[in-house]
Amino acid sequence: MAIRVFGFPSSTCTSRVLFVLEELGVEYELIPVNFAAGEHKQHPYLERNPFGQIPAFQDGDLALFESRAITRYLVRKYGKDSGLLKKTTPEAAAAVDQWMEVETAQFDPAISTIVFQILVVPFFLGGTTDEKVVEAQLAKLGKVLDVYEARLSKSKYLAGESYTLADLHHIPCIHYFLTATPHASVFDSLPHVKAWWEAISSRPAIAKITAGMSLK
Amino acid sequence: MAIRVFGFPSSTCTSRVLFVLEELGVEYELIPVNFAAGEHKQHPYLERNPFGQIPAFQDGDLALFESRAITRYLVRKYGKDSGLLKKTTPEAAAAVDQWMEVETAQFDPAISTIVFQILVVPFFLGGTTDEKVVEAQLAKLGKVLDVYEARLSKSKYLAGESYTLADLHHIPCIHYFLTATPHASVFDSLPHVKAWWEAISSRPAIAKITAGMSLK
Ligand SMILES: N[C@@H](CCC(=O)N[C@@H](CS)C(=O)NCC(=O)O)C(=O)O
Ligand SMILES: N[C@@H](CCC(=O)N[C@@H](CS)C(=O)NCC(=O)O)C(=O)O
Repeated sequence: MAIRVFGFPSSTCTSRVLFVLEELGVEYELIPVNFAAGEHKQHPYLERNPFGQIPAFQDGDLALFESRAITRYLVRKYGKDSGLLKKTTPEAAAAVDQWMEVETAQFDPAISTIVFQILVVPFFLGGTTDEKVVEAQLAKLGKVLDVYEARLSKSKYLAGESYTLADLHHIPCIHYFLTATPHASVFDSLPHVKAWWEAISSRPAIAKITAGMSLK
Repeated sequence: MAIRVFGFPSSTCTSRVLFVLEELGVEYELIPVNFAAGEHKQHPYLERNPFGQIPAFQDGDLALFESRAITRYLVRKYGKDSGLLKKTTPEAAAAVDQWMEVETAQFDPAISTIVFQILVVPFFLGGTTDEKVVEAQLAKLGKVLDVYEARLSKSKYLAGESYTLADLHHIPCIHYFLTATPHASVFDSLPHVKAWWEAISSRPAIAKITAGMSLK
C-alpha cells in the first residue's frame, strides 16, 4: 500500500513531510483531515496521533506522527543517497542535527507564533492579532536571523555546502512569513539569508508544494 | 584532547549531555561557565554557542551546541552498540525519533516552564512565580502525561522494550519537577509513568549526575 499522509498542504507541519516525499520522488496519498469539524481531536484520528495534531503518517505497518520524525524516517528509508541527513560521518551528521535543533528550539517558536497571530487568529479563529506578541517575537526572530546571516556568510547551507533536512525544515514558516505577513522586509537586510531562501525555495520539489500553500 | 562540555550540571540542558557521556563511559572534562557574570552572553563564549546558552561542546576539531544534537552525536560516535538510537532499522529508529520529538514539542515546553517559574524565577532571578502560568502549564503537562501513561502501559520504555535517548532526554526536568516543586503528586495517578521514571532515574549513570543537580 502507498504511503499515506493525513493532513493538508497549507498546514506547515504537513507540508514539511510533503517536501521530503517530493524531494525523494516517493509516491504517496494525501488524506484530508477535516479540521473545521474537529476530526483531529476525535477517535479514530487520535489513534494516529494521540496529541490530536496533524500530520499523521502510515507506511505499511509503520504509523508515525511528529513531522520532523517522519522526515528523518523518509530519508533513512528512501533517501540513503540523498545527502539530506549526511550520514557519512558522525561529524557531518552532527552539523545537520545541530541546525535541525536550532530550527526547533530557536527559530520555530518565534516565527510560528508570528504566522499564527497574523494568519491563523484572524482568518481561522475569528480573533484579533495580538500586536504585542507579534512585536516580541519579531525581536526574537531578528536575533535568530542575525545568527543565520553570520552562519550563511560562511557556508551555502546551514549544515555546510549541501542542502539538508536542516534547511528544508525551515521552509513552511518562511513561506508564510514572506508571502503573507507585512514583515517580509526583515529579510532585506540579510543578503545571505535571502540568497539561501532563494536557493531552497526554488527547488522544484519545494515550489510544487508551496504553490498550493495559502492560509487566506 | 578529552571531550569538553561547557556548562554546569544543575542546568537541565547540560545534564542531558552528561547523562549520555556517563551512560557510554566516555571521558570528559566539565568546564564551568560563569552564568552570574554573564559569561555565556559574551565573547569568546558566543563563538561556542551564538545563541548565548549552555551547554557547548568540543570533541577534537568538532564544536557543537544544542544539547539534543550533542547527545545524538555522542551515540553515533561512541555508542554504536548502545541501542540508544536503535539504528538497526529505519522503523526502529523512527520510534526513537518520534518520542524525542514528542519530548521537545509537547513535553518540554510545559515542564520546563513550570520548573523555571517555581525554581529559577524566585531563586535565581529574584522574582515571583507566576502561578497562573504554572497552572496553565500543569494542565498541559497533565494531558501529555496521560498520553505517556497509555503508551507506557503497552511498552516498558517510550520507544519500545529498551531504554533509548528518547527516555533519557526527559530526565533533567522530571528530576526537578519531582524533587523540588510541590507538584510531584501529579505522578501518583500514573502508575506506568511512575514505574518508567523509577527505571530510568535509578540507572547508575543517571543517579551519579542527578545527585549533583540542585536549583536551590
Ligand atoms: N510538533 C508537531 C506539531 C504539529 C502541529 O502543531 N500541527 C498543527 C497544524 S500545523 C495542528 O494540528 N494544530 C492543532 C492543534 O494543535 O490542536 C509536528 O511537527 O508534527
Ligand atoms: N535548546 C538548547 C537550550 C539551551 C538552554 O536553554 N540553556 C539554558 C540553561 S539550561 C540557558 O543557557 N539559558 C540562558 C539563556 O537562554 O539566556 C539546548 O538544548 O541546548
